Parts: sequence; C-alpha cells; structure tokens
Amino acid sequence: MKMNPAPSPSASAFSVFSKKNAPLVDALMENFFTEKISGADHPFIRDMYAVLSEYSTRDGKRIRPLLLLASYEGYKKGVKRRSEITKLACAVELMHSFLLIQDDIIDRSALRRGGKSLHVVLDEMFYGKTHNKSIGSDLGIVLADVLFANAMQLISSAGIGPREKDEFVRIFSRTYEMTAWGQILDIAHSREKRPDLSGDWPLVISELKTAHYTIYYPLVMGYVLSGRRDGGEISAIREFSLPLGIAFQLRDDILGTFGSEKQIGKSADSDLSEGKMTLLVKYTLDFLEGSERKKFLSLFTSKSKAKSDISGMRSM
Amino acid sequence: MKMNPAPSPSASAFSVFSKKNAPLVDALMENFFTEKISGADHPFIRDMYAVLSEYSTRDGKRIRPLLLLASYEGYKKGVKRRSEITKLACAVELMHSFLLIQDDIIDRSALRRGGKSLHVVLDEMFYGKTHNKSIGSDLGIVLADVLFANAMQLISSAGIGPREKDEFVRIFSRTYEMTAWGQILDIAHSREKRPDLSGDWPLVISELKTAHYTIYYPLVMGYVLSGRRDGGEISAIREFSLPLGIAFQLRDDILGTFGSEKQIGKSADSDLSEGKMTLLVKYTLDFLEGSERKKFLSLFTSKSKAKSDISGMRSM
Repeated sequence: MKMNPAPSPSASAFSVFSKKNAPLVDALMENFFTEKISGADHPFIRDMYAVLSEYSTRDGKRIRPLLLLASYEGYKKGVKRRSEITKLACAVELMHSFLLIQDDIIDRSALRRGGKSLHVVLDEMFYGKTHNKSIGSDLGIVLADVLFANAMQLISSAGIGPREKDEFVRIFSRTYEMTAWGQILDIAHSREKRPDLSGDWPLVISELKTAHYTIYYPLVMGYVLSGRRDGGEISAIREFSLPLGIAFQLRDDILGTFGSEKQIGKSADSDLSEGKMTLLVKYTLDFLEGSERKKFLSLFTSKSKAKSDISGMRSM
Repeated sequence: MKMNPAPSPSASAFSVFSKKNAPLVDALMENFFTEKISGADHPFIRDMYAVLSEYSTRDGKRIRPLLLLASYEGYKKGVKRRSEITKLACAVELMHSFLLIQDDIIDRSALRRGGKSLHVVLDEMFYGKTHNKSIGSDLGIVLADVLFANAMQLISSAGIGPREKDEFVRIFSRTYEMTAWGQILDIAHSREKRPDLSGDWPLVISELKTAHYTIYYPLVMGYVLSGRRDGGEISAIREFSLPLGIAFQLRDDILGTFGSEKQIGKSADSDLSEGKMTLLVKYTLDFLEGSERKKFLSLFTSKSKAKSDISGMRSM
C-alpha cells in the first residue's frame, strides 16, 4: 500500500501561515489595482491596469511575500506593523510578476500560472491593428516597467522606520540585481552550440535565480524589517537557504522534465527541447559515461529536436 | 546677413551650470561602475558591468540630472547636501539608460548616443555562440534591469532626510510609471493601419514621454529634495514645464524628419518610415486638405515605404 508521507511539522506550520497570510497579500494587491483602475486618467490606462491586475493576482504560491512575512514575524519583538510590512511583501510579489513577464518574452513561453503569458494576452488585444508583428512583446516589456514603478510606490508609502526602509531598499535592489545576473548567465548559456561543461555555472545560476531570489533574499528582507542587522544571523539564513533553494530548483527541474503538462502548466518537453542546461542536465552529464554521454550531448546541443530525441534524453 | 541669435540669459546660465555639474554626475557614475567592476564575484559579471559603464557614460546632455540639481539648488535654503543629491541625480540618469536600452530593443534601433545600441553590442559579443538568434535583445532586457537595481542602490545609500527620501521615491516611481504609459500609448499607436486622427493622443504621448519625463518630474524631484512640498509651487512648475516640453518634442520631431544623420545619430527617414505619429505629423495632417491629406495618409500608413515616399511626405 502506498502512503503519503506525513507533512513535516515545519511544512505544516508554513502551510497554516500561508493559508492565513496569502489572502492578505492578494487582498492588498487587488485593492492597489482597483485604486489604479478607478484613478486612471485615460481609458486606455484603465484597460491596461485591468490586464495587469488579472495577471498579477492569478493563483500562485506567493512564496516570496510569505517568506518575507514569516521572517519578519519570527524576528520582530514587540509591536508589529503588519499592514505596512504587507505593502512591502506586495512590492516583492509585483516584482515577481515583472520578472515573469520578461522571462516569458525572452523564452517565448505562451503559458503562465494557468493562463496566457502577458505578451500573448497583449498580442491578442492588439495584433492586426498595426504593422508591428511583435506588438505583444513590445508592450509587455513596458507594462512590466509599470509594475516595478508600482512596487516603488508601495515602498514609498510604507510607514516604517527610515533605517529599516533604507536597509530594505538595499536588500530589495540587491535581490533584483543578483536575479538579473542569474538570468543573464542563464540566457548566455542556453542553447549553446558548444557548452562549457567544466564550469560551475549551472550551480551559480540556480543559486542566483532560485536559492537567493526565492528563499534567501525574502528571508533577509523580513529580517532587516524587524530592525535587526546582525551579520552572523544573515550568514546563518544564507547557510540554510542555499541548499534549500538548490533542492527546490532540482525538484523544479525534475518536474520540468518528467512532470505532466497539467502539473507544471507547460510542456515537460520544453526544458530539454530548449537546450536548457539545468542542474539536472549537468548532474546527468556528470553521471553518464562514454558513448551514452556523447549521444546525450549531441542530442542536447542540436538545433532542433524530434519527440524521440527528447524521450531518448529523458530515459538516459 | 544671417546672425546667430544671442543666447537668452537663462539658457546661458544653464549652460554654465551644465558645464560645472555634468562632469560631477559623470564622475559619480564612473566611480559607481568602477566599484561594481572591481567588486564583481564573477568575471562574466565584471565584463557585463564594463559594457554597462561604457554605455551609460557615453556623451549625452544629462538634461534630467542637471534639471534635478538646478531645481534643488534653486529651492534649497541653508546647508546643501550636494554629494547626496548628486547620487539621486545619477539614479535618474541610470534610469534613462534603462529606458533607452528598452526603447532601442522595441524600435530595433541600431544606433544610440554616437555608438551602437546596447542590444547590438551584446549581439556582437554573443551571436553565433548559441542557437538563439535574438540573444542581444534577450540579454539587453535583463541588463537594463541591472541598471534599475543600481539606481535603487544609489537611492538607498543617499544620506538625506526620511521624509525627503519617501517623497523623492514617490515622484521617482511616478516618473517611470507615467513615462511607461507614454511609451505604451506610443507603441499601440505606431504603424497603425487605420490611425484614429480625432484623438489627442499624439499630444498626450508627448506630454508623458517628453514634457513630464524630461522637464517636469526632474524639476519636481529637485523641489521635494529641498524639503518643500507646496502644491501651488508644483502646479507652477507643471505650468511652465509642459509647453517647454512640447516645444522640446516638436524640435526633436523636426530634427528627426529634416535633420542630418550626423546631427541626430540616426537616419532622418526613420520617424516617417516607422509610421510614427509624432506631433509634427499630427499637425501636418491638421494642416493638409483634400487630396494632399489623403495622399499623405496613404503613404504614412503603408506597410513599407520607398525613399521617394519618404521625401514626398517630407515636402508636404
């Protein structure tokens, strides 16, 4: 008989925390967009805010704002200014949408969070009205900018101490700088004709794009918002965040290769067909030997891959 | 005999101010990037920061940081914290580079500030190494994000009062929100098959993309940094900024249609051939009648235009 593993105490505690707090983050995002829609000077801006609102409030785990809030709650002694901190958690979630929009434009991905990618939504709204064939992506790049401006509006309006705010903005800006470097390294190493297999960059990319972005920085944001600034504590957060983030990434890579389309919201062929040098691929290459390794590599670096090539790689 | 008009006293005063202050903005930008380059964890990040540094410090008028500084100087009584304000002026200039990078990707422009557009620089560095034919644009989108993270780093490190900083971030975020709306409207109305000629949107676009972005917001940023917050004064700034900005835009449209490639750093055919509904085109259409207007419109909305079509439109 198959049994589901019992949830670990901490996972269960986090799921209770999530059930209580994710709706608060979503409610604040919805209010924010409702105000933007009703205050828009121009009907066009109103319509575009409706698009951004629908996109940003789609179902999602809200993992980053939740980790920020959990970290703040845990570290903060005395009076907690929860509503002000929730604004900052929302800013982090809007920045996540900002990055997802860009990501899907770059990867030409059509699906996101159980719906169409933003540039596809825009394409359908505007295609045929102009001679511009890439109008969806062009508009998407700039609509993403509206979200980062919105995130800064939430930051400027949050009523917290000035030292905490400066420290928050410092970590916040570091988050998007390091995530951008992860993304840049990823683009530069995707679909490479002759991938450099000696370097540690698949690990560096996962550290930057997942471990730092999803776990470490949100926790540090919550920590500095609590008013603390002990470098030792920040190192301790980093020490457990990195392996956790890498595990999270490997789970994602495995789902992205062996999962069902329903489970992951996109085709499980895409990682392999795009020639994405994930950690999973890197570890597979470290494990394979001789002719098998050679065959995998030749399939992996080929420009276009047949269904059978993908399933061949998957079984290896 | 033709005579050059004598410079007006204010233009001359601004050019003296500019000669003194533009080098301070540039020096701070260069220092910022030098530190980023020497502190980079990864040789790849170091190389990319060298690219961003070269791009951001190319010759330019630095009009926005200079207007911010001039406004601060004029409004601030008592002790002036110039070096801290210069950091914020630099943040505004880095955001300008952020927008230019995106703009050139969207417009597929190859030239900028007397050099290659950033995505072209990146294309030349990476093209052929991967199967990704749009690697320059893909990398450019994310490298631009590094600049906005850098701008936020400058903001968080600026030692100014907390009220002034919140107010600055509020105006700063509003700047990039409204500029994005101008850009979005512009994209949606460019190369339209059946342009709506009744609306006021060419004026709205110029107000948002030029008058607000280049004149009004930088002046208001300097104003709020001086510690003042008188709504009447802000309205007064707006009242003279808008016509000044529109004049600036018309001058730009005229140069973009009748100027030389050397003067404007790109071909003077591009505005017309791209079917850009500039204020100049809008006013031309308001002025033309009957068959001439019809002919202009049919040339303007055609998908591709011959050299003779462009010169035909130019002479009309």
